[in-house]
Amino acid sequence: MEQVFPYEHLHAFTRDVFIKMGCSPEHAELASTVLLSADLRGIDSHGVARLSGYIRLWEAGRINAKPDLKIVHETPSTAVVDGDSGLGLVVAPFAMQVAIGKAKIAGTGWVSVRNSNHFGIAGYHAMMALQQDMIGMAMTNASPLVAPTFATERMLGTNPIAVAIPANQQPAFVADFATTTAANGKLEILQRKEQEAPLGWIQDKHGAPSTNPNELKSGGALLPLGGDREHGSHKGYCLGSVVDIFSAVLSGANYGPWAPPFVSFLPLPPDPVGKGLGHFFGAMRVDAFRPADEFKDHMDKWIGRFRSAETVEGEEKVLIPGDPEREMEADRRVTGVPLLDPVVRDLSEIAMRFKIDF
Amino acid sequence: MEQVFPYEHLHAFTRDVFIKMGCSPEHAELASTVLLSADLRGIDSHGVARLSGYIRLWEAGRINAKPDLKIVHETPSTAVVDGDSGLGLVVAPFAMQVAIGKAKIAGTGWVSVRNSNHFGIAGYHAMMALQQDMIGMAMTNASPLVAPTFATERMLGTNPIAVAIPANQQPAFVADFATTTAANGKLEILQRKEQEAPLGWIQDKHGAPSTNPNELKSGGALLPLGGDREHGSHKGYCLGSVVDIFSAVLSGANYGPWAPPFVSFLPLPPDPVGKGLGHFFGAMRVDAFRPADEFKDHMDKWIGRFRSAETVEGEEKVLIPGDPEREMEADRRVTGVPLLDPVVRDLSEIAMRFKIDF
Repeated sequence: MEQVFPYEHLHAFTRDVFIKMGCSPEHAELASTVLLSADLRGIDSHGVARLSGYIRLWEAGRINAKPDLKIVHETPSTAVVDGDSGLGLVVAPFAMQVAIGKAKIAGTGWVSVRNSNHFGIAGYHAMMALQQDMIGMAMTNASPLVAPTFATERMLGTNPIAVAIPANQQPAFVADFATTTAANGKLEILQRKEQEAPLGWIQDKHGAPSTNPNELKSGGALLPLGGDREHGSHKGYCLGSVVDIFSAVLSGANYGPWAPPFVSFLPLPPDPVGKGLGHFFGAMRVDAFRPADEFKDHMDKWIGRFRSAETVEGEEKVLIPGDPEREMEADRRVTGVPLLDPVVRDLSEIAMRFKIDF
Repeated sequence: MEQVFPYEHLHAFTRDVFIKMGCSPEHAELASTVLLSADLRGIDSHGVARLSGYIRLWEAGRINAKPDLKIVHETPSTAVVDGDSGLGLVVAPFAMQVAIGKAKIAGTGWVSVRNSNHFGIAGYHAMMALQQDMIGMAMTNASPLVAPTFATERMLGTNPIAVAIPANQQPAFVADFATTTAANGKLEILQRKEQEAPLGWIQDKHGAPSTNPNELKSGGALLPLGGDREHGSHKGYCLGSVVDIFSAVLSGANYGPWAPPFVSFLPLPPDPVGKGLGHFFGAMRVDAFRPADEFKDHMDKWIGRFRSAETVEGEEKVLIPGDPEREMEADRRVTGVPLLDPVVRDLSEIAMRFKIDF
């Protein structure tokens, strides 16, 4: 059913694949680290399982292995980056570094990115700010799979938002979530297990509630966070829209239903309204507001208080955003990363094709 | 059941009340405009119905009618404002103007506020950015009524987020929503009508799902957007937490369960961790990213495309965030603001007490 691989093994393999695609050693190293941060943190849908997807996009000419990453517009606290169709896994850290650099001087930095593609997990990029005593933010638009409230059409991606906030003794607060009820990766797991989805995750092509995890293949859609109007789906629709506009309308990328699909077998939407996919990054220096130690001590108090909140019977504790992923990472760095058999087969085929050991 | 009043009538009355409280004419005018923007936009729970609540806070010495509003820390793109216990209705526009001023020079401006209290509707403040061709953002923490996922304790307020984005021919995109399944105002309506709440809005004091809209009076709690873990309540909990931290931990206000209650008969939580309530504002100059006309033309295209999305049978159209409130405002400016009888009685009592005509 699954095999366990040491992290270092997967990292070396993935780096070699990116080098075979033509990436520079530095880019290959970085892309591998970003991609595998998903596997370490337990977001298996966004990790090495997607490697073959990136390769197919590269084969289709939609990923440029040697991008010329450029700031095309800037002010003291903002920039627009053109990713030159590079791997999002490389474009995103570049843009986040620009945001961090701006924040060092202006207090905050905000970078909108065009002409990119899938950037792995949003949390990785947001967390880059932490070691600088900054709050980090990352978001991205994505292939349209989500129907706005009252719509049958798929107009938005699962458009995630990540926010990373440093603490002192406590581990950092790291929120990283799709603006839908459930991320697409969760549906894929149900598909594999042949299980039904809870009501509120998906609708069929007519907009009726559905529990069929394969509904997207027949014109259905994921639902914005909230699920239906009565439970606030219009709020999830607002959030997904803001991510789309900050990532793609501000930068000049493709927005809404024009966002290019991740899977290479789907054609690009006709009449593009911009270039590639868009992202948005933010970095706020904590001491642009109050002394960093003071802030981080209060974050310790915030986290400690929430962790100690009284729980519903049967629940062990109240979690702080980032707790499950951090615990997973600590565990998998030691015990290795489990991969499902189809993923192992996929990687073996990639190894054969590129003549690399796996 | 209800009476309709011309907007100008309510505005003049409310301004006179604030003047009787000791506000300057400028502050009274502004506070009245901000408070009544809720009534105009159909968010009746946040408008003139709350006037008596502000008066009771002032009587309890928790609102300073003559605040000395001050920037206590700043960088090119950030500031912290101390509201000196002033009306949030006055503190918030001051802070948003600071954010807008910063954005003019640095591209963006971000202002965290401490020592404030209830600021009316978040949308008003976010929309201040629109006429400057800026994107506006506003959020605030609030009295703890919301239980994090797995908790029975009320740790967060309904902590709203507003984002206003300018367009060209199309009206602006204005999202303004509580980070809970349903705002507290909606529960109040059900209480008045003696109707049950849908499952997913509230839980009882043990954390069990409840449909009793009076549950908060016996230790129950509102639920984060998502409702339960399976439907993503941890995401609503993340959002409410980020609002709390940006508003109160960055500024030095009271956060989480220490946030002061709006109702004056509840005591302030002991051992405060900061000063008053906190807010957070952002302004981003659109042309800090791309030429403003180009951006606004694309927003027209974004809005037009979403408005034309195919709808679920029985639904007339897909709404753009801000549509219902804008239509309501256009209507109520002409036909007047309907107030429920208990609100009218409340205002009549205020009029008698302050010897003002109503």
